Amino acid sequence: MSRATGRGRRPGTPDTRGAILDAARVSFAESGFAATTIRGVAARAGVDPALVHHYFGSKDDLFLVALQIPVDPREIAPKVFAEGFDGAAERLLRTFLSVWDDPELRQPLVALVRAAMSGESGQGLLEEGWMRLVFAPITEILGPEEGPKRAELVATQIFGLVVVRYVLCLEPLASMDADEVVAAVAPTIQRYFTGDLS
Amino acid sequence: MSRATGRGRRPGTPDTRGAILDAARVSFAESGFAATTIRGVAARAGVDPALVHHYFGSKDDLFLVALQIPVDPREIAPKVFAEGFDGAAERLLRTFLSVWDDPELRQPLVALVRAAMSGESGQGLLEEGWMRLVFAPITEILGPEEGPKRAELVATQIFGLVVVRYVLCLEPLASMDADEVVAAVAPTIQRYFTGDLS
Repeated sequence: MSRATGRGRRPGTPDTRGAILDAARVSFAESGFAATTIRGVAARAGVDPALVHHYFGSKDDLFLVALQIPVDPREIAPKVFAEGFDGAAERLLRTFLSVWDDPELRQPLVALVRAAMSGESGQGLLEEGWMRLVFAPITEILGPEEGPKRAELVATQIFGLVVVRYVLCLEPLASMDADEVVAAVAPTIQRYFTGDLS
Repeated sequence: MSRATGRGRRPGTPDTRGAILDAARVSFAESGFAATTIRGVAARAGVDPALVHHYFGSKDDLFLVALQIPVDPREIAPKVFAEGFDGAAERLLRTFLSVWDDPELRQPLVALVRAAMSGESGQGLLEEGWMRLVFAPITEILGPEEGPKRAELVATQIFGLVVVRYVLCLEPLASMDADEVVAAVAPTIQRYFTGDLS
C-alpha cells in the first residue's frame, strides 16, 4: 500500500477509505461530477491522490462507490443486449426492477434522483455520472444515427417509472408486482429500442 | 368588496392580492397542499379569509394562481376526451407540449417539479395538487377498474418527458420538434389509455 506523505496528509489507516468516501460524497454533491477530481477529493480527505486511485480506481469507480450505486451500470447494457434486441426491453426492465424493488438498494438511488432534480450540481451528477454510464453504452449499441434519440426515449420511460413508483410512490403503481410492470411497460421500451418512431 | 376587520388585518388594498399570493406560495412550499388552508393563508397575509375567497375562489384555484400554473389542469381531460378515445394521446401530448415548450409558461412548472422532487411538502404539492387536478379526471374517464393504473402509466411517460426534455434538457430530446415527439411518444400513451397491458 502506498503511504501518504507531506504536511497534514494521513497515512493509509483503516479510516482513510472512509475519509476519502466522505470527501468524495461532499465534492460530488457540492460540485457535481465534472468539477470533482481525484486530486480535489484527495486534498479534501488529506491524503495523497495515489491513495484514492489505490482504494477506488478511476473517478467513475469512486463515483459509484461514493453514491452507493448498488450495481455497476457499465455492466447493464452488455448484459441486456448479449442475446440480441429481441426481449432486450424485458431484460432491461427486470434488471432495473430487481435493483429498485429492493428497499435497501433503492435508498441511495432515490437520494441521487432527488439531488439531481434539485439543482445544477445534482443535475450534473445524473447527466455526466449516470446517463453516461448507463445510457451511453445503450446509445452505442443502438447505433450513431438513431441511438441517442432511442436511448433518451428509453430514459424518459425509466425515469418516469422511478418518479411515480419509487419517489412519489403513487398507488397502484408503487405496489404493482414486477410481472405486471413488465407487461405494461416493456412494450414501450422495446418500441423505443427497435420500433418505428416516425 | 368585503373589508377585513380585526387586529393587524389590512383592508383590501391593491397590495392585498399580492400579499395573499405571497402567503399562499410560502404556505404551499413549506406545508404542502393538504396542510395549507384558506384560513392559514389569510392569517399569514393579515387579511380576512373571506377576502381570500373573494379574490381567488377555492383552495384549488388559489393553488393554481399561486404556483402560476399557466393552464387550468381541470380543463385538460374533458378537452382531450371530448372526441372520444381515438387520438386522445396525441391531443393530450399536443396540449402538454404547447404549454411546456413555451419557455415562460414552463418556468413555474419546472420549479414545481423541482420542489416536488426535493422533499415531503413538495411531493404533496405534486400528488394532491397536480396529480389530483390533472390525472383524477383522466382516471375517472378511463373507468374505476383500470383507470388508476392506466392514468399512472400515462403519468410515468409524461413525467419522464418532463424530466429529460425540460428539467435535465438532454439532447437530442430537448430540441426535438413537437411533431417528432408526438410521433415517438403518442403511441405509448395511446396504448396506456386503451391498449392491452397484460
